[in-house]
Amino acid sequence: MQNDGNKILIGSIQRLLRRGAISHLRKIMNKTHAADLSVAFRSLPLASRHKLFQLIEDPEKKGALLTKMEEDAFMDFVEELNIDEMAEIFEHMPTDDVADLIGPLPEDTTHSILEKMKREGSDEVEGLLQYPDDTAGGIMVPDFIALPEDVTAAEAIGSIQKEHLHVEMPFYLYAVDAYEKLVGVSSLRQLVVVPPETPLRDFMRTDVVSVKTDTDQEEVARIVARYDILAVPVVDETNRLVGIVTVDDVIDIIREEAAEDMLKMAGVGGEFIEGKSVAKSARIRLPWLFASCIGGIVAFFVISRFESSLSRFSYLAAFIPVIMGMGGNVGTQSATIVVRGLATGRFQVMDFWPVVSREFAIGFILGAFYGGLIGVVAQMRYSTAGLALSVGLSVICSMTVATLVGSMAPLLFARANIDPAVATGPFVTTAIDIISVFFYFEIAATLLGI
Amino acid sequence: MQNDGNKILIGSIQRLLRRGAISHLRKIMNKTHAADLSVAFRSLPLASRHKLFQLIEDPEKKGALLTKMEEDAFMDFVEELNIDEMAEIFEHMPTDDVADLIGPLPEDTTHSILEKMKREGSDEVEGLLQYPDDTAGGIMVPDFIALPEDVTAAEAIGSIQKEHLHVEMPFYLYAVDAYEKLVGVSSLRQLVVVPPETPLRDFMRTDVVSVKTDTDQEEVARIVARYDILAVPVVDETNRLVGIVTVDDVIDIIREEAAEDMLKMAGVGGEFIEGKSVAKSARIRLPWLFASCIGGIVAFFVISRFESSLSRFSYLAAFIPVIMGMGGNVGTQSATIVVRGLATGRFQVMDFWPVVSREFAIGFILGAFYGGLIGVVAQMRYSTAGLALSVGLSVICSMTVATLVGSMAPLLFARANIDPAVATGPFVTTAIDIISVFFYFEIAATLLGI
Repeated sequence: MQNDGNKILIGSIQRLLRRGAISHLRKIMNKTHAADLSVAFRSLPLASRHKLFQLIEDPEKKGALLTKMEEDAFMDFVEELNIDEMAEIFEHMPTDDVADLIGPLPEDTTHSILEKMKREGSDEVEGLLQYPDDTAGGIMVPDFIALPEDVTAAEAIGSIQKEHLHVEMPFYLYAVDAYEKLVGVSSLRQLVVVPPETPLRDFMRTDVVSVKTDTDQEEVARIVARYDILAVPVVDETNRLVGIVTVDDVIDIIREEAAEDMLKMAGVGGEFIEGKSVAKSARIRLPWLFASCIGGIVAFFVISRFESSLSRFSYLAAFIPVIMGMGGNVGTQSATIVVRGLATGRFQVMDFWPVVSREFAIGFILGAFYGGLIGVVAQMRYSTAGLALSVGLSVICSMTVATLVGSMAPLLFARANIDPAVATGPFVTTAIDIISVFFYFEIAATLLGI
Repeated sequence: MQNDGNKILIGSIQRLLRRGAISHLRKIMNKTHAADLSVAFRSLPLASRHKLFQLIEDPEKKGALLTKMEEDAFMDFVEELNIDEMAEIFEHMPTDDVADLIGPLPEDTTHSILEKMKREGSDEVEGLLQYPDDTAGGIMVPDFIALPEDVTAAEAIGSIQKEHLHVEMPFYLYAVDAYEKLVGVSSLRQLVVVPPETPLRDFMRTDVVSVKTDTDQEEVARIVARYDILAVPVVDETNRLVGIVTVDDVIDIIREEAAEDMLKMAGVGGEFIEGKSVAKSARIRLPWLFASCIGGIVAFFVISRFESSLSRFSYLAAFIPVIMGMGGNVGTQSATIVVRGLATGRFQVMDFWPVVSREFAIGFILGAFYGGLIGVVAQMRYSTAGLALSVGLSVICSMTVATLVGSMAPLLFARANIDPAVATGPFVTTAIDIISVFFYFEIAATLLGI
């Protein structure tokens, strides 16, 4: 339904552009949601995008549309905008979004935009630019309600009505001490429920969950999801409240990180590359295949050591795919379970032996089942007990080793502070390929007496 | 840091349990956050969990703890609770959480609990139980602020203070007509900014995004993330406002769905199975490996057709792993990109040819690169031009076909309304294995004149 809507929207815009029906276009641009416009923009040439953008009246909407563009598209688009226009739009946007947008721009452009923006907004943006993008500091908004712990509920309501009307997401009310240090939290709802003369200190919660400015954004997302909160306060090294991270930014992080983990495990880097040209995409995917190329060449040298056996027992070759395939697939199962378990906090790095021994046991059970099955097929086809036994045992070995490698690799990488998702994908499948082939030929050579 | 905290918490609880230090335990249970308690509970025996649970004073906290348990753990735990106790706890919980918890219980238990609960709450829960779990109806709360469109801002504030104090997430103010149909939306913040006598009709937004009760929860999550909203209104077939889905539930959905997609693609089903026994886990993972077992056996029959060639050119076998590996890896790249692209709405099902031809081009470029490389290695080792050429061409074919299969399969499955993630994983790798081996031996047989 959504998709059909987009198709119709893009169709009408293209038709109206051809007819030059500016007043119609103006109406569409001003009544359609920025999120939908951003989808339509992806299918339009740059010049049309600029023409349409100028028809939008509300600077807040212009800002929302800029925020929804992919980074590459934004960089192209922004070249044609003048500094005054950008400064005006940015003034109407949440400061964390502004910081995200101007972060990648050339330094002198950033500088001139900040100069043009009204004092307060530009100070806030500059404050945010000092933190790395993927930390709590880089994604927080310095836009929250903080009150001394000794104000009463009635005073708090009064002060919110006077001073905090601009706060975008007024869910929580943070209590701070004389040094602006965070000491408690309450909610707007709580404020109206307690008797008006109650001091904040008496009804606030003191077990307030907070993060530091340098906390990784993934950890921030985990905390927000875990405690089911709508915003998490961000404090500096001295526990002074400096901002909040709101749940809408957390959603984006969770989506991004989950997609990143999947793409990394598949060996496509961490970013979505479909917006890029074929040549660029191929260049990004190329190095990730290198591990499996090297692995394949190593497997080749392993097998070629057994060349003389192969020329006598040529049917040995026919079982290579099934042994590699079974090991590879069960190893991918283990690796995915562990990478995902680490990402969601179901496993900790220190759960090494429980997790690995569990996977080992599962690998052995599955190996015994499929080893038996494939051994029987081999026996039916060739009626050579030695061969059937070699194939069966190889499948068991390959699948058991695969679960070991698949579960140990991400845990070891995580312990060494290497992202388990990125390291695990190519490493695990390649290692399993080599080990499987090696076991197979060693076992066959022994049992067939080659 | 979080993890260390949990370890310390579990350690102290165990120590205090051994010493029977009830008053200490009571303190810990009442001051620790339910999310942290739920982690500690996972490491404790059932009897201790019950003992500790009874020490919690706040029924709301008891409810939060129940909500955070995994389904299996909850079912075990709840057997020992009596109906009165459960009814009391459930009365203090959001109705959507209650519906989630009692949904899987035996029907007569559900019935007796609902009977004991106060009228209003139990009606709401029963209302929710009628919708499937994974639809907007199943995850909504019937707890929102709806006002006629002709009330003024001042009247709206008064009515909220009188009647809507219990609303848990009062971000939005929905405007309804005389038939309770949804016509607009505004925010609490807006209410205090406009002049008090302005009617709601004049400052509300009329382009309000809503979902139907039967909208799939994944679609609901996509909409909330896309429009950056904190709650989406749910309407019935006649556009009557019946509930809202809030952002905290959406976060859980996004996390679940992303994890599900990864697990499905790895062929481990859709659920996280680490909480289950080794035997159960092995049983769940077993059938997913069947596809690759069948695939391996088919590959075996393909290769065994070339047995006589293999006995003359035994070195052919040594290249099987590298050809299978390169195809498999590049195919996984394509499949992951497409599955993820479909899930996040970057591709539509109707983008078939643009997506597939793009992947085809990338597969050919990568195939030419690695085919050349591996061909050179083959030439260096055996100095047989025919072999080197066969190996190089096979890598190109295998990688190109792999990108085709990897991109077409999820698009075709999605078009047939089969979940692309679940179908793609085992299918793609198995298909690529067979096709790669087939091409390799056909090309080699032709070029080497076997």
